[in-house]
Amino acid sequence: MSANAPAPSSRCNVAPFHAMDVLAKANALEAAGRKIVHMEVGQPGAPAPAPVLEAARRVLDIGQVRYTEALGILPLRERIAVHYRDAYGIDVPVDRIAITTGSSAAFNLAFLAGFDVGDRVALPTPGYPAYRNILAALGLEAVEIETTAESRWALTPEMIRAAHAERPLKGVLVASPANPTGTMVQPDALKALTDVCRELGIWFISDEIYHGLVYEGRAETALALSDEAIVINSFSKYYCMTGWRVGWMVVPERLVRPIERLGQNLYLSVPELSQRAAVAAFDATDALEAIKEGYAANRRLLLNRLPEIGFDELLPVDGAFYVYGSVRRFSNDSMDFAQKMLLEAGVAASPGVDFDPVGGHNYLRFSFAGTTEAIAEGCDRLQNWLK
Amino acid sequence: MSANAPAPSSRCNVAPFHAMDVLAKANALEAAGRKIVHMEVGQPGAPAPAPVLEAARRVLDIGQVRYTEALGILPLRERIAVHYRDAYGIDVPVDRIAITTGSSAAFNLAFLAGFDVGDRVALPTPGYPAYRNILAALGLEAVEIETTAESRWALTPEMIRAAHAERPLKGVLVASPANPTGTMVQPDALKALTDVCRELGIWFISDEIYHGLVYEGRAETALALSDEAIVINSFSKYYCMTGWRVGWMVVPERLVRPIERLGQNLYLSVPELSQRAAVAAFDATDALEAIKEGYAANRRLLLNRLPEIGFDELLPVDGAFYVYGSVRRFSNDSMDFAQKMLLEAGVAASPGVDFDPVGGHNYLRFSFAGTTEAIAEGCDRLQNWLK
Repeated sequence: MSANAPAPSSRCNVAPFHAMDVLAKANALEAAGRKIVHMEVGQPGAPAPAPVLEAARRVLDIGQVRYTEALGILPLRERIAVHYRDAYGIDVPVDRIAITTGSSAAFNLAFLAGFDVGDRVALPTPGYPAYRNILAALGLEAVEIETTAESRWALTPEMIRAAHAERPLKGVLVASPANPTGTMVQPDALKALTDVCRELGIWFISDEIYHGLVYEGRAETALALSDEAIVINSFSKYYCMTGWRVGWMVVPERLVRPIERLGQNLYLSVPELSQRAAVAAFDATDALEAIKEGYAANRRLLLNRLPEIGFDELLPVDGAFYVYGSVRRFSNDSMDFAQKMLLEAGVAASPGVDFDPVGGHNYLRFSFAGTTEAIAEGCDRLQNWLK
Repeated sequence: MSANAPAPSSRCNVAPFHAMDVLAKANALEAAGRKIVHMEVGQPGAPAPAPVLEAARRVLDIGQVRYTEALGILPLRERIAVHYRDAYGIDVPVDRIAITTGSSAAFNLAFLAGFDVGDRVALPTPGYPAYRNILAALGLEAVEIETTAESRWALTPEMIRAAHAERPLKGVLVASPANPTGTMVQPDALKALTDVCRELGIWFISDEIYHGLVYEGRAETALALSDEAIVINSFSKYYCMTGWRVGWMVVPERLVRPIERLGQNLYLSVPELSQRAAVAAFDATDALEAIKEGYAANRRLLLNRLPEIGFDELLPVDGAFYVYGSVRRFSNDSMDFAQKMLLEAGVAASPGVDFDPVGGHNYLRFSFAGTTEAIAEGCDRLQNWLK
């Protein structure tokens, strides 16, 4: 390497996703013979349901796995429109639905289509770290607004107005149920958020990836509340298709062609096999609801046992498959605590700093997407370790 | 939509990929009962080879399709290192190899990791349009340098120096064999390009997606010429795995962790099924070489017949599966000509404006990745239509 060799960009200096680093370390320990209880990654323990695997096999039998239209195959877009009728009772025009390479691609496309370099986008903390890291990589400013129990860990119209008054926002991003908290924005509160964005003339992005996984209350789609919302969803969570990398977004009419052009250039096409298989995911409701029952059992287990073990200040787990709780009784450095917990107790969880650079050093996120046996085993290990 | 509703960003105002639009129109005509000869998209007519399909079936039998490490599964990274030993006689450290969601993701990651907003990147025209469109979307300036027969349609060190003197470049991107021309940069010329980039302290990005598909001369990898090159490749072309969306990149050591962090946030993971299947692509050399023999026959056919029909000034087709030729004898508007050709003759090809906004109005790109029968039929139709 010569003296004047080029350096990496400044914008690639985004934070790593610590949960993925914990996963890598946990895998290394397992490869060395340790048995690890995995509660670090938001990934269903169950494989994709049988109709999905069967649909994928049929594609392989034909053998053609090719580029598709950038917006995705029509049968999947049409099936998603039917899903909105069935699940929410609303009509969504097929041509506003775009298939994406997981919700990751949908965020990237939404940010590129909606925002120019320097634009400000508000989002609540604690929250999914990739939001702020993708925004940073694309030259956008993440305006992180710390939430508290007072607003039930949600943004309020007042917070958005205040941030906008400071320096104009160009958008707001909200997930409900949220990651890492599992907490939902109730339909009325969601409506108030879409209204304030409409009033301020800014984009409202609704991450609905945990829809379908709701234990308390009802998850409303922002599409039912506003034609202006950008809605993002995926087959990774409820539908158990993480590694397939297929999701979708619904956008206002005027964003369709921009999203298509960006998709043609940045992605060319969503994996075809995953698209064909995803059509069948909607035919697996019984199997998926059974899996959700397992999560519900895991949730009850954790909500009982974690406070006994000494983790407290648990946030309301309305949906998703996470419990976000305080480690204050044991440590003020959740990253260090998570590392010791992995090494000494063999339990992997994600440090709160992933989700909240400010308050996260007191928190851990436990994913309960695994089996009930594994979750119980994890609780036993933690109880013995912390005794 | 209210009066102050937010508008799409300026940066999403990238050009569409006209080849994909032609594909969509051709598909619509076929759906209406026309038989179209497809020469518009750079997509092998053959499905992925049998060992790839078999490996994918084995994954489905186990059923687990999950998130993988952001840099990709180790067996595939290791297999690619072996490929560099076998095909080029060079040792590439496994930890410098990253698996990506097609070469599309590799370009996105390379541009984000190497360049900050406002940076200038030189590339030859005619060239693959997604380069300039991704650069534009990421806030980068594509410095397009028009090439001619004089330099055999390649950039020269002098051109790079001149562009750098005008206003400093931060990188240079070269494809060999190139799209849409099929023309290769010979090893000595490639070495001169990596040398001038090293001297100027800027990134050299080598798109090697058409390696393996070479009819004249030998394609050298930039990795054999410089430890500083960023090399991008894919399973889409030689390996016939377009719709699987899996490719790879090899980067200098100091870019590995930036690429990993960006990948964790922007992609999470490359489709696992495609990664597992791609390992088997290297066991299908006989089948893939037979497919390449078909391309070679198609190439000979087109190089004979296109000039007879009246398309001339064909660029040297050293590799890839494209012939880039002039339509000057018939039209000065290749976009209009391509549309008429599709409607009236039922032959789809891509207008040169995709690849060269300046000179492309005189050119068409014919892809010969289909069957020899289809190519011959296309030539017959064109001959009748243009008589």
